[in-house]
Amino acid sequence: MSKKLDVKPESENELAICRLIDAPPEKVFRAWTDPSLVKQWNVPKPWTISKCEMDVRPGGSSLMVMKSPEGQVMPCPGVFLEVVPNKKIVFTDAFTKAWEPSAKPFFVGVITLEDEGGKTKYTARAKHWTKEDRDAHEKMGFHDGWAICTDQMEEMLKKL
Amino acid sequence: MSKKLDVKPESENELAICRLIDAPPEKVFRAWTDPSLVKQWNVPKPWTISKCEMDVRPGGSSLMVMKSPEGQVMPCPGVFLEVVPNKKIVFTDAFTKAWEPSAKPFFVGVITLEDEGGKTKYTARAKHWTKEDRDAHEKMGFHDGWAICTDQMEEMLKKL
Repeated sequence: MSKKLDVKPESENELAICRLIDAPPEKVFRAWTDPSLVKQWNVPKPWTISKCEMDVRPGGSSLMVMKSPEGQVMPCPGVFLEVVPNKKIVFTDAFTKAWEPSAKPFFVGVITLEDEGGKTKYTARAKHWTKEDRDAHEKMGFHDGWAICTDQMEEMLKKL
Repeated sequence: MSKKLDVKPESENELAICRLIDAPPEKVFRAWTDPSLVKQWNVPKPWTISKCEMDVRPGGSSLMVMKSPEGQVMPCPGVFLEVVPNKKIVFTDAFTKAWEPSAKPFFVGVITLEDEGGKTKYTARAKHWTKEDRDAHEKMGFHDGWAICTDQMEEMLKKL
């Protein structure tokens, strides 16, 4: 399990987790940007990711399809807003592709990676357009869900 | 007056105008990205722009403050999403700065510039998150307002 670190949300509409991951930022960046790797960790098991496509650049589209054990599918389309290799990834569901507004702008994900002597200080922030959405995301299990995924990522990276 | 060209909105939530401007794309791009120039044309007179600041790059902030003849001020903060020199500018009010969600994501502005033998085919699209916002923007006078601004820009560019 990755070590939990303190993190303060940057606004009242934000949820955040911070972990120390036992892998260098280069590997964590790969885990987030290589679809074949993303599929292995980015949803809490026993859910799986049945499809993952990513055009990793500002304005590039991403599509991740989550699948429940019962076969229910949940497509998550989005667009990257900012990509700094090995340091930062920003994406949002506010656009379906560059630059078409989506039906519901729910959140912006900001992932930052900081080198800590070969490990990675990993901060994942979810910034919402409304307090209601922030609270709903929290009730959906944001903190546990993202923490579980982070542990799954760390496990996967050990085998890389 | 710039020549009106046909343009088809790319979605039902979009408003658009298209004009042939008697100036090359390089000058129109400057008109959109040099704050001292933007101040001269980007609101229908007799309104004025009392403040204009722009960090013209993806993720860069912009702030334009419009001022009515009676002194009422209307701040318009936003963020650039994409900038291709002399070709394309994309901005939105969905963020107050990179990447803080704003109180109300209203629209994305997509400005495209195409060279037409030394003139510019100028397309300005406003893509909204909802049909209601698109309709409200139309009622606020989008088509006339943006056309008047375009003419003001063309007039200004003649003197550059």
